[in-house]
Amino acid sequence: MKGIRKLIAVLTLATAALTTSWASAQPDPLPGWNDGKSKAAILAFVRKVTLERGPDFVPPAERIATFDNDGTLWAEKPIYFQAQFALDEIRSQAAATPALKSKEPFRTVLAGDLKALMADGNRGLGLVLARTHSGMTTEAFSRSVAEWLETARHPQTKRRYTEMVYQPQLELLAYLRANGFKTFIVSGGGVEFMRVFADKAYGIPPEQVVGSSGVVKFRLGKDGKPELIKEAKVEFVDDGPGKPVGINRFIGRRPIFAFGNSDGDLQMLQYTVGGSGPRMALIVHHTDAEREWAYDRKSEVGKLDKALDEAAARGWTIVDMKNDWKTVFPPPP
Amino acid sequence: MKGIRKLIAVLTLATAALTTSWASAQPDPLPGWNDGKSKAAILAFVRKVTLERGPDFVPPAERIATFDNDGTLWAEKPIYFQAQFALDEIRSQAAATPALKSKEPFRTVLAGDLKALMADGNRGLGLVLARTHSGMTTEAFSRSVAEWLETARHPQTKRRYTEMVYQPQLELLAYLRANGFKTFIVSGGGVEFMRVFADKAYGIPPEQVVGSSGVVKFRLGKDGKPELIKEAKVEFVDDGPGKPVGINRFIGRRPIFAFGNSDGDLQMLQYTVGGSGPRMALIVHHTDAEREWAYDRKSEVGKLDKALDEAAARGWTIVDMKNDWKTVFPPPP
Repeated sequence: MKGIRKLIAVLTLATAALTTSWASAQPDPLPGWNDGKSKAAILAFVRKVTLERGPDFVPPAERIATFDNDGTLWAEKPIYFQAQFALDEIRSQAAATPALKSKEPFRTVLAGDLKALMADGNRGLGLVLARTHSGMTTEAFSRSVAEWLETARHPQTKRRYTEMVYQPQLELLAYLRANGFKTFIVSGGGVEFMRVFADKAYGIPPEQVVGSSGVVKFRLGKDGKPELIKEAKVEFVDDGPGKPVGINRFIGRRPIFAFGNSDGDLQMLQYTVGGSGPRMALIVHHTDAEREWAYDRKSEVGKLDKALDEAAARGWTIVDMKNDWKTVFPPPP
Repeated sequence: MKGIRKLIAVLTLATAALTTSWASAQPDPLPGWNDGKSKAAILAFVRKVTLERGPDFVPPAERIATFDNDGTLWAEKPIYFQAQFALDEIRSQAAATPALKSKEPFRTVLAGDLKALMADGNRGLGLVLARTHSGMTTEAFSRSVAEWLETARHPQTKRRYTEMVYQPQLELLAYLRANGFKTFIVSGGGVEFMRVFADKAYGIPPEQVVGSSGVVKFRLGKDGKPELIKEAKVEFVDDGPGKPVGINRFIGRRPIFAFGNSDGDLQMLQYTVGGSGPRMALIVHHTDAEREWAYDRKSEVGKLDKALDEAAARGWTIVDMKNDWKTVFPPPP
């Protein structure tokens, strides 16, 4: 008996050693993440929901993962990039139409006085957004975003905005998809703005982008050509309690995995973990003043206050950018 | 020279013969369709957009196909099946809450007097829809639809409603998907109603269903449980000019292939063929009083008048149910 027991023990150890060496021989799917609690939690979650016949197995069709965009997939400082697009568009328009220069709020924009622009309860900003986001076809708008993304550079890093995406998140998106997840953006940003770059930047096709939108009208234009015209009227705000509403409207299933970075993501995270079965909620905590920015409870852009408390209280995964991410932005192309 | 020419001719004929015999050896992907112009046009379209290096090649990501539901994927007579669901729900509610029986418009519903119900400019129908489609969570609504689909039977065929889908269209959906298309429903029907059965009935997952919707609100219910509540307020009507708007909002790309059956599909078809590159627009013409129903210009449900004229004028494919479809409904399970 002793001999058999010993044999079993040896075989078990040998198997364990083989398993370990096999696992460590696999390439790391998240090389931009430091080894630590956050990375381990992600790997463990994906392992358990994909383990066939395991108690936490989730069929591929239900592996819905939703990501906020600003501050979660790409940076959002000093101001939301879409707001920067609007301001830059006003500058181009003023160059073509000088009469604009003496008109408010455009004069304030051209003077670079963002504080004054924001001071009037968003009226000025609303006019800027209306002028740059409506009164054109959806296709003309997409072209203007694409052109801007080609030419604009971030004021501090001097990089293209589409290079200000987070390398660890690109790896995470790819890792999830390789494990049968369907990845969606669920963002307060404009849906037609994000769709221009989401496929190339993140591998997320237009039909998997959920965002805020303005009213769009169909008409037959010149020569009976069908057109969709963007109007200066808000239709849907995909932020805060709007996020679970947007998820229900566009996706029609509750995610099992959601990643945000601000109070605007709180309800999406609550909704995600509120379902039955395995669930994972994550928050990017911007703690890295050196490689990115450090901000949370008092930031005007990307305020993280209530969601930070709730994450701590409920044991959600708080990703500490400084400690959890080996790299922040991808290397220059 | 003559010898070589002859040789080439013989080789060409031999190749042609081989190609033909190879093609005829392939199983027919659309056995429910009779050979004829409509089937040939579909096969030719799919062949040309999938032919790599061909002049009409479309990359898989852009192979978006949209289908109307009522009258295009399943039947819509004697009334829209979703309206039948609402009427049946009122009957179940009246059984549980007898006070309802003496209240209008429910008394009219229970008397089966549809004409009277419709006569007041949709006010009565609106109340019926509100009572059966709001004041509950999205999940409770889905459950009530699922239960109804289990138990309800079509008044004439006595079949389940999910068996009143069109066999030729199931084949077409599968054929398109096998050729790299992403298939969507774009219907005036309620999005939350259709999502309950679209995956099982058509292989179309919830996130690929576009439809009309009511306002939904997020709240934290009892014990802080997150819930989505359906309100009695129309949010979006995905019909007529709303269809291209819905396509833009949910899909964010213009389809290259669209299939409808009524004037409510006209703008979707116009929008589809209005893009550049190869496009295909199709209409089911209900011409089969024996196996299904025959109706078009004067029908209250599924009126096909303007779109029939435009289809003829622009050379869209008009699918004549009687002549083009070998079978209509799938065989009983």
